[in-house]
Amino acid sequence: MLIVAERINSSRKSISEAIKAKDADFIRNEAKAQAGAGAQYIDVNAGSFVGQEAEYLCWLVDVVQGATDLPLCLDSPDPAAIGAALKKVKKPCLVNSITMEKQRLEGMLPLVKQYQTRIVVLCQSDKGMANTVAEKFDIARQMADILTKEGVAAGDIFIDPLIYPIATDTKSAVAALGAIREITMKLPEVHTICGLTNVSYGLPVRKLVNRTFLVAAMAHGLDSAIIDPTDRELMAGLVAAEAILDRDRFCAGYITAYRQGKLA
Amino acid sequence: MLIVAERINSSRKSISEAIKAKDADFIRNEAKAQAGAGAQYIDVNAGSFVGQEAEYLCWLVDVVQGATDLPLCLDSPDPAAIGAALKKVKKPCLVNSITMEKQRLEGMLPLVKQYQTRIVVLCQSDKGMANTVAEKFDIARQMADILTKEGVAAGDIFIDPLIYPIATDTKSAVAALGAIREITMKLPEVHTICGLTNVSYGLPVRKLVNRTFLVAAMAHGLDSAIIDPTDRELMAGLVAAEAILDRDRFCAGYITAYRQGKLA
Repeated sequence: MLIVAERINSSRKSISEAIKAKDADFIRNEAKAQAGAGAQYIDVNAGSFVGQEAEYLCWLVDVVQGATDLPLCLDSPDPAAIGAALKKVKKPCLVNSITMEKQRLEGMLPLVKQYQTRIVVLCQSDKGMANTVAEKFDIARQMADILTKEGVAAGDIFIDPLIYPIATDTKSAVAALGAIREITMKLPEVHTICGLTNVSYGLPVRKLVNRTFLVAAMAHGLDSAIIDPTDRELMAGLVAAEAILDRDRFCAGYITAYRQGKLA
Repeated sequence: MLIVAERINSSRKSISEAIKAKDADFIRNEAKAQAGAGAQYIDVNAGSFVGQEAEYLCWLVDVVQGATDLPLCLDSPDPAAIGAALKKVKKPCLVNSITMEKQRLEGMLPLVKQYQTRIVVLCQSDKGMANTVAEKFDIARQMADILTKEGVAAGDIFIDPLIYPIATDTKSAVAALGAIREITMKLPEVHTICGLTNVSYGLPVRKLVNRTFLVAAMAHGLDSAIIDPTDRELMAGLVAAEAILDRDRFCAGYITAYRQGKLA
């Protein structure tokens, strides 16, 4: 499972305050904690700073690159912010995200090509966000087509089917799971990815819903996730799911996690 | 989700001792605890008492029927023990289990028909236990055919794909999940059921593996399970999975479980 660590996101109050105060130590500790907990990419997001997003995103890139050797996931819908941050990035990175919306596609694609980044694709077009399995898969297929024709390797494409709260539409998670399955089976070279927090919005004990959804999504083929790797129960479920789904040879990862005290 | 409560099983030491000592209070308390925790059937098993299984199974039936109004799941491979217990059963019950093995089929089927029981079918024939998705589905299809031709309603058939330890074969859970999916899609009137404890045999922190497998199996269509409903973490995951999989209208079951303090 490819783990993109989500904590350095300005929508979280503590991160927003650390960014405002230019508290590099706080950000470095967040980066190191997530790296130590099993992250493979560190997501950086300064989206709550309208007008200063590019400046703060660049600062985050510098600080996080000083704290860990892990590659970054640059998290912004704005090509200007992504473009500025890409100039500072030292390793091949993941860009989160592009959509099939004409303006966003035209703004982001040149950067993806120039910097040869990996790219998260949201199942969203000028018609809006995709709701059904068919709509989600249709955008996934079209975007895989567009991107590979532009020279992006299929293995560098991460499709996010979009997850909505089950509290407002109880069919929404089933649609996302169905799309993950379709993409996994019909576009096997492309990755699937998602965040978890939306699914539980409006419900109590949200982490229980999030980690249950993660296991269900992995059972449908999800191979990457934008999550908090410092959430021990979430990670224990992930490790167990890898073993169950035959993605953990000899259950060696499971046994190792147990010996490291990560499953108790 | 149909929950068959598994605790009153003579393979557990405390149960075996209670049966030997004819400690009816102990058994009654187990039955009541499981009923209170959300069971829909109470499984009774006296299989470890070779030569006395029928006698002890009948005793368990009497004791449990005195403790709860829930229907029973009579758990034995032996038609003689099942036949004796069925004479004492007051409500339509579930019999666990029949297989496609000629002798077991011929021994159990007349009882199923005479008492109009619901029946658990293990994916096992005279060729042995089914290992692959194709083998498991093949037995499921044949047994559904045999049983419905004999007058058993499809909705009274519960197919158990057989779960083996992932510690000895990491592909075994994937095969079971695939079979659950095939049966759910191609034999939609038939139920799927399984126990969870085998999957984690030989691994540490077994309950983590069991509850993760349950969520994965539900995501593939599993609609019934033989489990310990007093395991709070297992049940919390089950309730969350129901909500995610659109089996819990308005998430009402999830909210209720939360208000009852079952999710914390």
